[in-house]
Amino acid sequence: MKKLYMIDDSFLRLESRRQPLHIGMLMLFEPPEDATENFASDLAEKLRQSVKTAAPFNRLLVRKRGMHYWEEDSDFDLGHHFAHVSLPEPGRIRELLAMVSRLHCGHLDRSYPMWRIYLIEGIEDGRIAVYMKIHHSMVDGMTGIKMMINSMSPDRDASRDLPPFWEVETIKSSGGQVLPVPTPIVESIFAARKITRDSAKSMMGVARELRDSFVDYWRDNPDLAVAGTAPHTVFNQKVSGTRRFSAQSYSTPRIKTVAAALGGSSNDVILAMCAGALLRYLQELGEAPELPLSAAVPVSVRDRNNDTSDVANEVAFTIANLATNVADPVERLKAIKSSMDYNKERIRRLTPNQLQAYSAMMLMPGAMAMLLGRGSEKALASVVISHVPGPRQDLYWQGAKLSGLYPASLVIDQGALNITIISRHDTVDIGLIACRKAVPHMQRLLDYLEDSLSELEAAVAKLPKVELATYDSVNPKAVKPKAVKANAARSSKAKSVSGKSATESAVTSSKVSRKKSAASAGLTK
Amino acid sequence: MKKLYMIDDSFLRLESRRQPLHIGMLMLFEPPEDATENFASDLAEKLRQSVKTAAPFNRLLVRKRGMHYWEEDSDFDLGHHFAHVSLPEPGRIRELLAMVSRLHCGHLDRSYPMWRIYLIEGIEDGRIAVYMKIHHSMVDGMTGIKMMINSMSPDRDASRDLPPFWEVETIKSSGGQVLPVPTPIVESIFAARKITRDSAKSMMGVARELRDSFVDYWRDNPDLAVAGTAPHTVFNQKVSGTRRFSAQSYSTPRIKTVAAALGGSSNDVILAMCAGALLRYLQELGEAPELPLSAAVPVSVRDRNNDTSDVANEVAFTIANLATNVADPVERLKAIKSSMDYNKERIRRLTPNQLQAYSAMMLMPGAMAMLLGRGSEKALASVVISHVPGPRQDLYWQGAKLSGLYPASLVIDQGALNITIISRHDTVDIGLIACRKAVPHMQRLLDYLEDSLSELEAAVAKLPKVELATYDSVNPKAVKPKAVKANAARSSKAKSVSGKSATESAVTSSKVSRKKSAASAGLTK
Repeated sequence: MKKLYMIDDSFLRLESRRQPLHIGMLMLFEPPEDATENFASDLAEKLRQSVKTAAPFNRLLVRKRGMHYWEEDSDFDLGHHFAHVSLPEPGRIRELLAMVSRLHCGHLDRSYPMWRIYLIEGIEDGRIAVYMKIHHSMVDGMTGIKMMINSMSPDRDASRDLPPFWEVETIKSSGGQVLPVPTPIVESIFAARKITRDSAKSMMGVARELRDSFVDYWRDNPDLAVAGTAPHTVFNQKVSGTRRFSAQSYSTPRIKTVAAALGGSSNDVILAMCAGALLRYLQELGEAPELPLSAAVPVSVRDRNNDTSDVANEVAFTIANLATNVADPVERLKAIKSSMDYNKERIRRLTPNQLQAYSAMMLMPGAMAMLLGRGSEKALASVVISHVPGPRQDLYWQGAKLSGLYPASLVIDQGALNITIISRHDTVDIGLIACRKAVPHMQRLLDYLEDSLSELEAAVAKLPKVELATYDSVNPKAVKPKAVKANAARSSKAKSVSGKSATESAVTSSKVSRKKSAASAGLTK
Repeated sequence: MKKLYMIDDSFLRLESRRQPLHIGMLMLFEPPEDATENFASDLAEKLRQSVKTAAPFNRLLVRKRGMHYWEEDSDFDLGHHFAHVSLPEPGRIRELLAMVSRLHCGHLDRSYPMWRIYLIEGIEDGRIAVYMKIHHSMVDGMTGIKMMINSMSPDRDASRDLPPFWEVETIKSSGGQVLPVPTPIVESIFAARKITRDSAKSMMGVARELRDSFVDYWRDNPDLAVAGTAPHTVFNQKVSGTRRFSAQSYSTPRIKTVAAALGGSSNDVILAMCAGALLRYLQELGEAPELPLSAAVPVSVRDRNNDTSDVANEVAFTIANLATNVADPVERLKAIKSSMDYNKERIRRLTPNQLQAYSAMMLMPGAMAMLLGRGSEKALASVVISHVPGPRQDLYWQGAKLSGLYPASLVIDQGALNITIISRHDTVDIGLIACRKAVPHMQRLLDYLEDSLSELEAAVAKLPKVELATYDSVNPKAVKPKAVKANAARSSKAKSVSGKSATESAVTSSKVSRKKSAASAGLTK
């Protein structure tokens, strides 16, 4: 028996009827050319032969004297964890997203290890999908991705011999498919949970202590973005228990071209896409606030030397100013970049205790409002936008090529919309999850994200033919002028709009998908 | 705003993570001969055009100062309530039951009117299915059936013009398709909730008062079956939140033939089928108790003159001795009949106060154990077996013929298996719902139910050719000898085994289904 870390435990204790605290992941796969019609059924049958599980898939929650422990499950019942399902006719992406929205709602049963995996067939374009949900007390999002990728291979044939997801040990093993090491914004600092994990104090006791150092921290940094003072929007209200999930892939080369031309990281461009999309969404509702929107952006505080040691929730938050009070898209991007650069620098200089307070607070749903004593009207930030690195090469699972990896994260009171992004080598995969009642027609954000990117591309196209500053994402401090000609950027834009450039044709074109399947669609091949 | 009745309210207050307190219903329909391949999709599209709801489908739960009220929902969102789904290949009944098992697990979102309806396509035999779930605080099972039947018609063409389920007002209207009036075991008595519904007392306060009259009632009736002393079985333990649903139709003529030949009501024969099946199931687990199993059997206490007045939970329980300590199937049936006759007579003689105590206690999940002060080891009864009347003629919904109506009732701690039966004119439709973890491989009970019926038929076939006692189900007291010849019963048995009798061929043949699709299948056309 293994006692849960305090932060993992908080995901169990704070879970409620309206706020299930599991995370999800939708994966799309292209079966091989020679696949039979029964590819999905045969695969389901093959997977059903499995009779074992590895950590963390075999971790059963046990409660003793009010404390939670993980125990190895001795009664593996695959029929509970794995299901083969099918879309109704006509099997569009619209039907897929509706299904995943429903699947994501239900609570995971604590009488079983808290995960479920669905193999989905019946997509009209011939692809198959896998939707996985797992309780956030068991893994964080990064580990969730790793758990999936551990069963994939860059070699199609080799992938057929890999075991099902749940048979691959993610915790102790460093084998299998290794994720390209993420570049954490914060390196070599103490993870908050290293200090709190073995504490015998009650969560409330810890929370009281945290409050003091948190308030100190805040007082010393009056100019640190807008945390805790985000304007009230539809995203900041009590949530229902019903979710809507939307997802779409955007071309990595398009985003990198904009980043290179306008100065900033890909992450800055993605935040700017989100900013433009959120602003337009609120405008159409007639509820755009005057104050700038902000985003809570998780940053990894995982110790680089120790990143395969456990399936931990090693995450802190920073607050990005989304600068939606700035009308010009390029100026808005610059303001966002400036805010993010400032935040990164601040966090880098935090003492371990400050970071402990900071990140532990952020990790507890609802804890912010409680501790700041402000009631629930004020939000920490307008939305949560996470950006995590994904695989950097083509991967195969059971012979089928991975063509999309879309996360569904937490929706909580005051945080009715969550945007999570996975960067892969050819596409940036964005998963949006929201309270269906609080955020009506949320799927429209897919179109607005695309519009936002197009706006930035249009601005790039208008740039004078001079040398532009580019942004080195490997070494974020080294922003320096570089010999990139504006006409290169311009020609790239023209190609992407026509949908016929060499890079575009090989990757997901959200332009095409948008025209093809209207507001609620996405994920088009 | 309308305050909830106390008993309805208790279904909200006693609901928990592991014990969602909604009821479900699976309906099977045969599309018309000339139906196109898109019958289900077209139907889904037609139903999606609906923009209104009637009571109780429009009742939104509102909580104010700790009290629950119903309010009319002003924000109808059909996309939350209605979904079109499809079975994966090969679309056997096995896949259908697996899907319904999963659909039945999730809690209904209290931020919306608490019901959901799924239109299911992809069944290999061409039928379509509808699965409906609704919170037990909104309706009882009888009203649930009525809600469905109100959108059906005995005329195929006329049925196409009827509105969707949720547009038909079930509460005030006496129009639409009227259910054949059920024959309540108890007539003209006060319904428990008539007294308690407007009580301002807290539930615990009421419970304390109830205890006294309940204990009095119990003391005066030491020989009243085995309530509260049921032997401990797998059915009587803490439940998980995961369910398994199974269902099957059994021929009404077969059951009536046995009843007529051996003496007893169809209900007695069905209880005997359950008794035999449960005994065999426990024997195979190596856990058959020496003491007889018992069943909590709900009886309607609805006032006959008032049965369309509200969607109330108007039900009390009696306890049937399942006589599983009797080895001979015929003797067992006789013991069951004797127990049921005794119970009916006792309940008929109860004073209103006694009945109030009796039924209110039975209706509160977990309240029994709490009030009897016996801890949770002792069960009220081994299982719950409900038997409700269904339609007595062929019915059509949107042009498709109703071919099965299978209920899924409540699973609660100490009540890990629930068997609910709907009697129609040609088949007896049985729905079983259980905790997946507590009752492993529950679907085997479908086979054992069939075996049990066959055993009784075999006994009938061996009867000497003399006049047999028959049971008049319309007038239960009038048990009298009637001129039914044993050889008639025998020939009917022979036919049913061969599967070729005239009656058999027109109705569900569980014999055939059993051979065809093994343990987990049922519902075969």
